[in-house]
Amino acid sequence: MDFTENESAQVVAKSFETTDDPRLRELLQGLVAHLHAYVRELRPTTAEWEHAVEFLTATGQACTDIRQEFILLSDVLGISMLVETINGTDAHPGTTASTVLGPFHMTGSPRRELGESIDDAGAGPVCVVEGRVVDTEGLPVPGATLDVWQADHHGFYDVQQPDHQPAGNGRGLFTADAQGRFRFTTATPSHYPIPTDGPVGALLRATGRHPFRPAHIHFLVDAPGYQQLTTHVFVADSAYIDADAVFAVKQSLVREFVTVDDEAAAAAHGVTAPFTLACFDIVLARR
Amino acid sequence: MDFTENESAQVVAKSFETTDDPRLRELLQGLVAHLHAYVRELRPTTAEWEHAVEFLTATGQACTDIRQEFILLSDVLGISMLVETINGTDAHPGTTASTVLGPFHMTGSPRRELGESIDDAGAGPVCVVEGRVVDTEGLPVPGATLDVWQADHHGFYDVQQPDHQPAGNGRGLFTADAQGRFRFTTATPSHYPIPTDGPVGALLRATGRHPFRPAHIHFLVDAPGYQQLTTHVFVADSAYIDADAVFAVKQSLVREFVTVDDEAAAAAHGVTAPFTLACFDIVLARR
Repeated sequence: MDFTENESAQVVAKSFETTDDPRLRELLQGLVAHLHAYVRELRPTTAEWEHAVEFLTATGQACTDIRQEFILLSDVLGISMLVETINGTDAHPGTTASTVLGPFHMTGSPRRELGESIDDAGAGPVCVVEGRVVDTEGLPVPGATLDVWQADHHGFYDVQQPDHQPAGNGRGLFTADAQGRFRFTTATPSHYPIPTDGPVGALLRATGRHPFRPAHIHFLVDAPGYQQLTTHVFVADSAYIDADAVFAVKQSLVREFVTVDDEAAAAAHGVTAPFTLACFDIVLARR
Repeated sequence: MDFTENESAQVVAKSFETTDDPRLRELLQGLVAHLHAYVRELRPTTAEWEHAVEFLTATGQACTDIRQEFILLSDVLGISMLVETINGTDAHPGTTASTVLGPFHMTGSPRRELGESIDDAGAGPVCVVEGRVVDTEGLPVPGATLDVWQADHHGFYDVQQPDHQPAGNGRGLFTADAQGRFRFTTATPSHYPIPTDGPVGALLRATGRHPFRPAHIHFLVDAPGYQQLTTHVFVADSAYIDADAVFAVKQSLVREFVTVDDEAAAAAHGVTAPFTLACFDIVLARR
């Protein structure tokens, strides 16, 4: 029998019947069904198909040890956020919402003491972030680890500027204390563009989309017996807070970063006035 | 408004409203609708999503000047054949059916005279291919160009073995004569596996799929005023003729490669007996 438009999806799906792993079989047969439905509906020309092949090839080739262009593509297509939403902790009422990992969690964060600064360059306006890691009953989760990372106040992560930023700048791995408390100092985050010098940047330009993300700090929180949480805290008055290029803002993750111009308060946090202060409590779901 | 599972596709599709080019907008908004539907239906875990990102990255990184792993992926998922079917000449009754380009048409074929051999290595059992390029009324299409390429009798294209085959081996660019006739000599093609040393090979192994294609010769036929035709001629008694790994066999493209053990016939074709002979007339559609 010849391959026909109407039967193509069934013929190809059938070729995966021999897959031992039932979940892999399900994922691939579903992929075939949806991809073939897309082609049947949108009817790409051969030139359009070639362009797609070139785009995907360039996206793979833009990836390096310190750059993940396919995650970025997944991000701007909203796929990362949809996968995160499906797998996140939103289903557990009262827990902190999850959001995307992003393409810059590709290097180990340096271990730091509570209160320490993650701004090794010492270049940005000073910010103190503090909070507690608790369970859904408000009880402390002692010894939780918090991996935090952020762009500097110019909008670049350390891995984007290996010649300009010390490795580990803007990153820290903290352990909460016996009461679940954590605190660190950093540079007040700024909104920034996602990398636009690769295929994903070209896609945004071709579609008139802006590349900006509102100011945020990433958190990856782990504690034995609790579900891992991937999230951000967002700066309430940041530009693009309502138009994140990767769709990751959730209202429950937005916090005021309050300017404090008080020497006593500054001294209590080991900084100098004025500084910004953000409080971000984290509620984990039990496994 | 937070990003939700039910509204994700609409929110992301809306972000592409700013696209100037209406066709690009349509293709991307359709892609978003189908990709989000896939994720909502199959519900990949974060680990599965990461695995997909790694697979696509490795596929892009396996591509070189002489290897196109994304075309190969498109081929084994039946997407290449579906795009070809949608855009092919099948809609024009009486014309030669089209089939996939495949990943090995990446280098210019050397110009050759009618009757010349494309088997520069002179290693395979000799085969003569002849036919006419005609229109749907059977009238000759004079001066049509035929770009032909095939694997050697061990199943490898020249670009796969730069150290073992002369560049251009198994390839030729011919011009049909005033009567639309063409003829060339080659090595009788053999069935062969698509490249299995990259991510696509790993996919086939994980799914229990074989990597073989039945024996064939590729044709890309062009003539002023006619639609370009991308096709193959397949060897009727080849292994895998009913199970092509890339779904490209059409019954109308299968020909007997007849063994001729006749010195006079061989001399008429400038070869020695025994040789195989295949006749493949090509019917083009007017633009």
